[in-house]
Amino acid sequence: MRFASYTAQGQPFYGAVTDSGMIALNASCPQWPTLFDAVQENGLGVLAQKAEGQPVTHTDFEFDMVLPNAQRILCVGVNFPDRNAEYKDGSEAPKYMSLFPRFASGFTGHNRPLIRPPENHTLDYEGEVAIVIGKRGRRIAQANAYDHIAALTICNEGTIRDWVRHAKFNVTQGKNWDNSAAMGPWLVPFTDAAQLDDARIITRVNGEVRQDDVLSRMMHPIRREIEYISTFMTLQPGDIIVTGTPTGAGARLDPPQYLKPGDVVEVEVNGIGTLRNPVADETA
Amino acid sequence: MRFASYTAQGQPFYGAVTDSGMIALNASCPQWPTLFDAVQENGLGVLAQKAEGQPVTHTDFEFDMVLPNAQRILCVGVNFPDRNAEYKDGSEAPKYMSLFPRFASGFTGHNRPLIRPPENHTLDYEGEVAIVIGKRGRRIAQANAYDHIAALTICNEGTIRDWVRHAKFNVTQGKNWDNSAAMGPWLVPFTDAAQLDDARIITRVNGEVRQDDVLSRMMHPIRREIEYISTFMTLQPGDIIVTGTPTGAGARLDPPQYLKPGDVVEVEVNGIGTLRNPVADETA
Repeated sequence: MRFASYTAQGQPFYGAVTDSGMIALNASCPQWPTLFDAVQENGLGVLAQKAEGQPVTHTDFEFDMVLPNAQRILCVGVNFPDRNAEYKDGSEAPKYMSLFPRFASGFTGHNRPLIRPPENHTLDYEGEVAIVIGKRGRRIAQANAYDHIAALTICNEGTIRDWVRHAKFNVTQGKNWDNSAAMGPWLVPFTDAAQLDDARIITRVNGEVRQDDVLSRMMHPIRREIEYISTFMTLQPGDIIVTGTPTGAGARLDPPQYLKPGDVVEVEVNGIGTLRNPVADETA
Repeated sequence: MRFASYTAQGQPFYGAVTDSGMIALNASCPQWPTLFDAVQENGLGVLAQKAEGQPVTHTDFEFDMVLPNAQRILCVGVNFPDRNAEYKDGSEAPKYMSLFPRFASGFTGHNRPLIRPPENHTLDYEGEVAIVIGKRGRRIAQANAYDHIAALTICNEGTIRDWVRHAKFNVTQGKNWDNSAAMGPWLVPFTDAAQLDDARIITRVNGEVRQDDVLSRMMHPIRREIEYISTFMTLQPGDIIVTGTPTGAGARLDPPQYLKPGDVVEVEVNGIGTLRNPVADETA
């Protein structure tokens, strides 16, 4: 069972994804106006029951960002060994992870274009697995960390590279351009540790493989991410952690290869699906 | 007229602040369940009308974070000339501002304690003026920037200093501890440029002045902050920009002086008020 936020006939819906279309669930779950509300109340199991045996309601629709009203999205930076080496600053594997928030407003949905703004053309991709928290917790032990995950999705953590280094600290302004990133296509409920432990991320640009690595190689594994983040803030249902991207982003190629209009980026994760986005220039 | 979020008899309210207590406005504005909803719909003028001539409804209450469900809070770092010099890295005045998001969940209300966690005792204060956006806009010109401000408030942008430098980039984990910061006591509608242009921030710890400077000395003035941020993201009503702190945080004193239980921090801004917070150790 997979769940998505989408737009049909100009209206926002959420529902269960089938191979022949969407089963809308808004009407049968009025207590949850959005998929985010359902996640906040640990409702994916109820959604699955409601969808069981129901007919497809929408075959003509567009995917939205999977949780468009998510309130807290934390991204883990530089989390694969070769990514640390890519910075060529001689630093050893870091003791603590790099973290930065992104606002939900910067993300678009599956099949929708990533937007290259007129101010700067260094738009770049980063394929990642994102986890959605389903259970509140503070100072969560690694052994219990997976109990706090409700669902998985895919993120293309798109970035305007030049703007990441505008300031002395913090990557904020390179990471929060409107429609520069994507998340989706859908949520897959998390039911088995192997969904993460055996996950492999493959990112393709126009069919060419640019990133290909397994989550098991991350310097700060997901259990550690949950432990560390929950040390300083109480994790809440609906929080999203974007867990880290492998080596091979366009900025690290020699010469760098940034995204341009007409390109198509696909991020594939076994067991979740493929998040696909074309690239377009911003139009007035 | 001033507006606040508060708790009375265990229930959340919002209302108009008077010298003798609160005039609750929830019941008379059911279309806006929270003060944030009112701000999102540019409703402060309506709230003022509703409060006019009404009796005080609550004299026994506690202030909450002024907009507890704010979705996007962006802080400007290192924005006073001497603050840049404090870093002693020989860098010139930066061309672009440093920006970092904070989650609303990290902020408490006026008179409530800032919490020093057991993991680390480098809790520090930063007195700042915060602006609340009232009008949507992208690529806003400096000349029009003030038209996009609905209200002003005060921020004590409390920080766990040691955790700011855990990672190679980004201050995230030092800036998002639960109850490490405060915002309030209230919103003051923005009606006159002089409210910002003549504003002075004074931060006191146990009555001793630690920070004292005027907004007009900021390297990146508020008009520029709005112009720059709206270049990459569409500003929305309810967005909060925390505009920068003067020199004199405890970490910069020699030797550093961090906050400890029993201390009281006050951030005073002429024309807005005084945000006061005691300091307490976290209790199990």
